[in-house]
Amino acid sequence: MGDAAFIGEGVVAETFNLSALPGYHTGGTLHIIANNLVGFTTGQRQGRSTRYASDLAKGFEVPIIHVNADDPEACISATILAYDYRKKFKKDILIDLVGYRRYGHNEMDEPRATQPKLYESIDNHPTCATVYAKRLVQDGILNENTHEEMKESVFNKLQGIYDDMTENINENPEVMPLPQALRQGLSDIETAVPKDLLHSLNKGLLKRPEGFQSFKKLEKILTKRHNTFTEEEKADWAVGEALAYASIIQDGIPIRMTGQDSERGTFAHRHLMLHDVETSETYCPMHGLDEAKSTFDIHNSPLSEAAVLGFEYGYSVKAPKTLVIWEAQFGDFANAGQVIFDQFISSSRAKWDERSNMVMLLPHGYEGQGPEHSSARVERFLTMAAENNWIVANVTTSAQFFHLIRRQAALVNSEAARPLIVLTPKSLLRSPRVVSAIEEFANEKFKPLMPQPGLNLTSKKAKRLLIGTGKVMVDIAEKMDENPQKYENLHVLRLEQMYPFPERQIQEVLDGCPNLKEVVWVQEEPRNMGAWNFVKELLYKMLENSDLELHYEGRCERSAPSVGDAHIHKAEQRRIIKRAVEWSEGGDTNEGN
Amino acid sequence: MGDAAFIGEGVVAETFNLSALPGYHTGGTLHIIANNLVGFTTGQRQGRSTRYASDLAKGFEVPIIHVNADDPEACISATILAYDYRKKFKKDILIDLVGYRRYGHNEMDEPRATQPKLYESIDNHPTCATVYAKRLVQDGILNENTHEEMKESVFNKLQGIYDDMTENINENPEVMPLPQALRQGLSDIETAVPKDLLHSLNKGLLKRPEGFQSFKKLEKILTKRHNTFTEEEKADWAVGEALAYASIIQDGIPIRMTGQDSERGTFAHRHLMLHDVETSETYCPMHGLDEAKSTFDIHNSPLSEAAVLGFEYGYSVKAPKTLVIWEAQFGDFANAGQVIFDQFISSSRAKWDERSNMVMLLPHGYEGQGPEHSSARVERFLTMAAENNWIVANVTTSAQFFHLIRRQAALVNSEAARPLIVLTPKSLLRSPRVVSAIEEFANEKFKPLMPQPGLNLTSKKAKRLLIGTGKVMVDIAEKMDENPQKYENLHVLRLEQMYPFPERQIQEVLDGCPNLKEVVWVQEEPRNMGAWNFVKELLYKMLENSDLELHYEGRCERSAPSVGDAHIHKAEQRRIIKRAVEWSEGGDTNEGN
Repeated sequence: MGDAAFIGEGVVAETFNLSALPGYHTGGTLHIIANNLVGFTTGQRQGRSTRYASDLAKGFEVPIIHVNADDPEACISATILAYDYRKKFKKDILIDLVGYRRYGHNEMDEPRATQPKLYESIDNHPTCATVYAKRLVQDGILNENTHEEMKESVFNKLQGIYDDMTENINENPEVMPLPQALRQGLSDIETAVPKDLLHSLNKGLLKRPEGFQSFKKLEKILTKRHNTFTEEEKADWAVGEALAYASIIQDGIPIRMTGQDSERGTFAHRHLMLHDVETSETYCPMHGLDEAKSTFDIHNSPLSEAAVLGFEYGYSVKAPKTLVIWEAQFGDFANAGQVIFDQFISSSRAKWDERSNMVMLLPHGYEGQGPEHSSARVERFLTMAAENNWIVANVTTSAQFFHLIRRQAALVNSEAARPLIVLTPKSLLRSPRVVSAIEEFANEKFKPLMPQPGLNLTSKKAKRLLIGTGKVMVDIAEKMDENPQKYENLHVLRLEQMYPFPERQIQEVLDGCPNLKEVVWVQEEPRNMGAWNFVKELLYKMLENSDLELHYEGRCERSAPSVGDAHIHKAEQRRIIKRAVEWSEGGDTNEGN
Repeated sequence: MGDAAFIGEGVVAETFNLSALPGYHTGGTLHIIANNLVGFTTGQRQGRSTRYASDLAKGFEVPIIHVNADDPEACISATILAYDYRKKFKKDILIDLVGYRRYGHNEMDEPRATQPKLYESIDNHPTCATVYAKRLVQDGILNENTHEEMKESVFNKLQGIYDDMTENINENPEVMPLPQALRQGLSDIETAVPKDLLHSLNKGLLKRPEGFQSFKKLEKILTKRHNTFTEEEKADWAVGEALAYASIIQDGIPIRMTGQDSERGTFAHRHLMLHDVETSETYCPMHGLDEAKSTFDIHNSPLSEAAVLGFEYGYSVKAPKTLVIWEAQFGDFANAGQVIFDQFISSSRAKWDERSNMVMLLPHGYEGQGPEHSSARVERFLTMAAENNWIVANVTTSAQFFHLIRRQAALVNSEAARPLIVLTPKSLLRSPRVVSAIEEFANEKFKPLMPQPGLNLTSKKAKRLLIGTGKVMVDIAEKMDENPQKYENLHVLRLEQMYPFPERQIQEVLDGCPNLKEVVWVQEEPRNMGAWNFVKELLYKMLENSDLELHYEGRCERSAPSVGDAHIHKAEQRRIIKRAVEWSEGGDTNEGN
């Protein structure tokens, strides 16, 4: 990396801070600063507060070797030293390769206007090859003729490559088509797991090493949770999630999971790393499964998004048989790693045919906690969705999450691999409404579109179709359960997978409701956020040749993702739910609140 | 900041790197780590690769004072030492305040499940107040009774405040209305500058200190450029921009401008800092203006987006009378500072009634340079546009940029202040099509909507209305100029300000074209990017009660902002322009390419 970027961009410090961490230690990394003495046109005095470009590394006790890029033998010595250090100490080391750019930042750039003295020196300075050749000739190692021949041979080789390249330029290229595997649907992937195996995995998760003393209050909760599955054959979110991971490693697919506080889970539901209260030793329940055929690796990440997300992305590309899962603390934390989503995760397939299967879990939902802890800004991921570059989902039951993650695991190391972004619940983690019966794990698969569970619908009666995604749909189910008769005119669909958009499945529902008058998109996010921006064109198109009206019900346009006052939040939320479910012919829900 | 965030988040390193830079030096900053020995549930060994949370600061030669938070007197001593150091050396200093959290990360958190030994120690450890009181009693400074009285008095005070607060909670609050100033339009702001003054400022910009020797090739360009304005009364982009800044400081409004290579400009058009080729001394032409009544401060920033953008945002809030301008190297670089846009710039008014008037210049345009240098991702800023939180513009002439920046300057220190995001040109910087005549500077003001310059339109003939923004509209003008007669059926509008959306002005054009059949939105970005996502609902709404069709012309949906192959780029661009201008009744432009 360049000298200006090394000291300037914070992701460098974040990356150094990964170097000795249990989940991130590489056995030492060799860092090289390509030190050009200038950052484009920005002088060193303007670009850094430190003497050397490399000084940042001092904070991480990383040895720094400054070497003159003009002296090839010194550079080789520095590199050998760096390799030896890494090999012996398994730690990071940095080479500050001090050189210059002869022609400025790029071919069209004139550096003499902004760095006149520096470029006067460079102009008067012979090239590295000239200096080195002269020394070799002086030392009698090389004679002038051989040097000229070597120069010519290298030049000819380069010229040859260039000529080949320019000859083969296709002036009228075709746009590369999308690989077949990415054009196919995902619906034929089977993810069900037999009941017996589920029971066995569930029991295995309660095993502890002999003498291991977990925190008692916690152990009680875990025991109760897993016993409920054994006895009632029902799984809450935490059990469903654990069974997903357990069954995936039973299938022989390794899992690597990281994120801020992911071992316990930000909302204290996961507990996949237990702590002995006496010895402080840790134990991961996944490691006690007799059925496991591969590894389950879980780490709390440091408080970084950019470097960690970049690391996990790289891991997923280089270990394509592993299911890599990264979890954000809250979904909005992802924006500190936005550059990784933009430059890599969303577009690396199109740009470099680089395949990643990583899962990103982004906690999302409006629960009155204010603008910084509510929204994963799904609108942003949906805007970037194209060419099946990734999957964007927001599921509302334990079994749906189970199947979604298992489907993703089924894609590892395949042509169809692609990243998965999941909005995950916060309060819903403990809601009885997300609980699924064992049959849903054992007999079903992932449903991109799902009718509201328990909806007692006579499709002929349906006049209004509500469609939405995530927690707000659970709020609606709660409201409707207060008085089911009252809402007989309503059909309610949950969009569990936003992208790819399940258009065919929605069309089937529309076709099955002959008396429908209107379709209402419901969301709890402001109108300029959430999925509305994305679904509106798709829904308009589906409805344009029908008599159905399309309405929006949700918060009105806002600059902040949510209000900061819990009372206003509640009033808004009540109003959305009320207006969404109260069908009255000709009523207008278009205003929002 | 917490210990985990300090070592984890890269923006901390970026901020340290600002500390001694000419444009960012604050005279020393006192940093405090609120060290709780844990990051939520993440232990120190998982959170950092260094011994101390503070080690990062070593790389910046910042002194570090570790102090026991349990010892109030030591804390006071540390603070005094830190203040004295700052005062004497004008440099940063760091206090690592080593304490703990008695109840875990928050009130609902149970830290004993994940940090059992640490919390056993904390549970057995008396509070700071108890320890200190005991010491004071032992030393005879305090007696037990006084101590109890003090405790009670503090407790009662806090209880009183809490009671007051809970009493005054409004259970049925109203949503705060938008301030009147933000609901008003911006169209009544006059920004014209008399011809004489423009001439005088333009000449002033050619003044140099005696004996100052700029780089000759550059001086030739600058002289020619400013002489053209004197002689032909026409300004290219660079002159228009310089005159905007010159006239603003002539108005008495100070300007602070920063960004990567902003002094020269990434595309070498600005040259507002000249370098003496003999002495390396610098000179800013703005500083030679006799008319200037305030300062013009320009700095190349270090290669950072998050910290620099945060710094500039803070500057604009704390210096509301200054026009603060930040420029991205390329528009897509802004994503490395996404968190600052999300958490501060877009939403700080709604959240904290914090006013910023800062300008962000984001170079944007499809010129075949590949996916990393084409798009400023305007879709993202438009999605976040609501409640008049900011202005998003993309202007196509020198005079439009002049008026836009002057309008923004007119808002400093006013109720109506809000940030401005401008997509700025790259190749257009040198295009004769962006050149404006002096009359446009002296007689006009900013036009949010502008017909294509030079369009010879009989509005009755117009059958197709093209509307779009930025460089692609200049490409269209070029195409139409090849054969003006051929395109008599076309009316062409440039959306120079996307948000607030100039709906009324568009409606006026529609009303004035009685034979219009269709409206076509043209963009060079992929369909899921650019402004289409934002304008489509607005345009659909305007057209829904008319017979006009709305079509899209531009690139099809893509995961990467652009292709990487310059030949494919050109083929795509040609196709968009061709299809946009070639009106044929009933033709379908909806497919894109």
